[in-house]
Amino acid sequence: MFRKLMTFEEAKKTVDSQFKPVFLGEEEAVLLEANNRVLSQDIVSALDIPPFNRSTMDGYAVKAEDTVGADENKPAVLNVSGAVSIGEEPKLKVALGEAVEIVTGAVIPEGADAVVMVEDTEREDSELHVFTALTANENVMKKGSDIKKGAVVLRKGQVLGSSEIGVLAALGSKTVTVLKIPIVAVLSTGDEVAELGKELPPGKIYDINAYSISTAVIESGGKPVYFGAVPDDKAALTKALQTAVASADMVITSGGVSVGPKDYTAQIVDSLGKPGIAVYGVAMKPGKPLTVGFVGEKPVFSLPGNPTSALLSFYLFARPVLQRLAGRPVSGMKMVSAFAGSRMFSAKGRRTFVMVRLEFDTQCRLIAEPVESGGSGAITTLTKADGYVEIAENEQFVDVDQEVLVFLFRGSAGKV
Amino acid sequence: MFRKLMTFEEAKKTVDSQFKPVFLGEEEAVLLEANNRVLSQDIVSALDIPPFNRSTMDGYAVKAEDTVGADENKPAVLNVSGAVSIGEEPKLKVALGEAVEIVTGAVIPEGADAVVMVEDTEREDSELHVFTALTANENVMKKGSDIKKGAVVLRKGQVLGSSEIGVLAALGSKTVTVLKIPIVAVLSTGDEVAELGKELPPGKIYDINAYSISTAVIESGGKPVYFGAVPDDKAALTKALQTAVASADMVITSGGVSVGPKDYTAQIVDSLGKPGIAVYGVAMKPGKPLTVGFVGEKPVFSLPGNPTSALLSFYLFARPVLQRLAGRPVSGMKMVSAFAGSRMFSAKGRRTFVMVRLEFDTQCRLIAEPVESGGSGAITTLTKADGYVEIAENEQFVDVDQEVLVFLFRGSAGKV
Repeated sequence: MFRKLMTFEEAKKTVDSQFKPVFLGEEEAVLLEANNRVLSQDIVSALDIPPFNRSTMDGYAVKAEDTVGADENKPAVLNVSGAVSIGEEPKLKVALGEAVEIVTGAVIPEGADAVVMVEDTEREDSELHVFTALTANENVMKKGSDIKKGAVVLRKGQVLGSSEIGVLAALGSKTVTVLKIPIVAVLSTGDEVAELGKELPPGKIYDINAYSISTAVIESGGKPVYFGAVPDDKAALTKALQTAVASADMVITSGGVSVGPKDYTAQIVDSLGKPGIAVYGVAMKPGKPLTVGFVGEKPVFSLPGNPTSALLSFYLFARPVLQRLAGRPVSGMKMVSAFAGSRMFSAKGRRTFVMVRLEFDTQCRLIAEPVESGGSGAITTLTKADGYVEIAENEQFVDVDQEVLVFLFRGSAGKV
Repeated sequence: MFRKLMTFEEAKKTVDSQFKPVFLGEEEAVLLEANNRVLSQDIVSALDIPPFNRSTMDGYAVKAEDTVGADENKPAVLNVSGAVSIGEEPKLKVALGEAVEIVTGAVIPEGADAVVMVEDTEREDSELHVFTALTANENVMKKGSDIKKGAVVLRKGQVLGSSEIGVLAALGSKTVTVLKIPIVAVLSTGDEVAELGKELPPGKIYDINAYSISTAVIESGGKPVYFGAVPDDKAALTKALQTAVASADMVITSGGVSVGPKDYTAQIVDSLGKPGIAVYGVAMKPGKPLTVGFVGEKPVFSLPGNPTSALLSFYLFARPVLQRLAGRPVSGMKMVSAFAGSRMFSAKGRRTFVMVRLEFDTQCRLIAEPVESGGSGAITTLTKADGYVEIAENEQFVDVDQEVLVFLFRGSAGKV
């Protein structure tokens, strides 16, 4: 029915080229909750920042020309005519021969064009001795020198962090227009899958994948919506997938995609709309049963049931698509170089991903040690692994002590 | 009044040794919202996982002894006595000479101890030819082989990500007990600071720091509570700080800590309780006016008013304390090696942090180029910077082309 088993590269290219991210719309976010959101528009400043000529020192606002030639031995002598309070429009002007007390951040009064630091002065009553010559604009931050009114300060597509939100705060708005977060329907299939929170019926296992995948969706900039564990029943699965495709921006199922007699998922996805199934099996290990389809422009990823395979194929195939849908840069996985601690075998003709944990040996070399899987369905494999080593289709194994690149699951949070 | 200007190292040591993280208590988190939370207890499995001997293949459950000596030319011949449905306790047993149809994930029926893959068989009606010899437990994932009932599967202090939440799901509970998130009171001081969302009064600037610092608090695992912009008024500031200390686990102020005539913050913090101010000024640039105090066990950081200085001193001093309070590993900043694009000068006798942006030159060398600050109060500096270069107190400058370590503000989200 479907073309079978693409190579890893073919499958990646097929998904990359068929996926066209649609615009999901924008919404207002409160600035204090806009961390990690994506700007949907360029941000143009409606203000000059600073909004006035601003002192960068505590001292006296003066006319620079009054200090020409002043030094330690020959101070300029000025008359202190008043003080500027911070946070206020100055009510006074500075005339030739005058100085006005000022603090950091206060508005430079009219007539003054420089600030002499308090350390460079001596004062007796209203008589001020200035022991240094100032140039125009010295210790003055000019109006608009940080941000000019009308300037683009942040660009559409930028991800907001502490400094970007600081810049937005400088512009005075409590909200910011950001891209909507993609809604990702997450559902599990299989008669053996039981929902959490109830006693486990005999012969069943709890739904792991919906939870691990939902969390991975959050980490990748999406909002997961749990559609529950759907039994291997064609009508029930069709209905669940129809609802999922209709209500979400992207759908991720797991389970029900091996060669067992009841694996309907791909058929149903293909029947829901054009263009249908694009990838039906990938020559990789783990993750071989992965299928990817598109219903209209909505991507539907059907991941294997094995928790490790499901999460790995999510990272390799679904995450980049979700990141593009969210308007985010597609973040490559972080990598470190290490030495193989044991021989790692590849699956013949398949791109192989070996889960490894990292540790230092006695010579402080970083060692990538394969994680014992305890059987192909092990749940604990991924918590023990720091990342994976990739072995090409045409290689039989990676030998012990060979240098390998380890792709890390967690940024810097791991042991490394 | 207070001891002045510690070295950077002294100040770090003083804060590290005086800060004793208190236990903030624990709470239940819904598993689907527990991403990035911290476990408050070891997690002990109440189940064997898998909860039964489980087939890892589609095929037939058999007794391994029935296949001794079987190969391509001399198949073992068995009688198919039934089938096991997935998700159910098998109602049949496997006797000598019998085979039972089974799929991946189904329960191995009593009497069987191995599964022969469907590919290694041929079947005619109920007669099954098995073309391979099986060992006991072949293609069987034994009950408890992934997780043993009573085993500790996750440890107190672990940060939950997709795989940890997968493991928790396997145990069947919809919730998990996690550490409470530290509440961080964030307030700005200074008569020049105006709150957002209203027109900017003359002589004032919008409150940038509360927003950038609050976002940095979120990024570091805390929950910011905005206490507003407090004017330079001793009574108002005392009241705000009292409330902040009483209601939050940690307090961060910014502004009001330079040498201006109205800088009350340190005095007030010191008056609120023992041990009081621990660090009063640090020989660093920027960030010199930083003060750190403790009211009882609650840390109070008073950051400079300049947005770049405020955020940098947060990263250097407040973040590690917040991470420890949150029960998280203190994450060192990520670093990359680069070449100085220009000479970078240090401030005499002070640990100097030069904000730099990273770019590749024509020979694909990574270059750290100082970011023009446009004046010491520039807001845009940090959005232009990818990180900083640190210059030791006894060095005068870093020369152009010298190799430098760049500490990155953003993980991999930046340009690198």
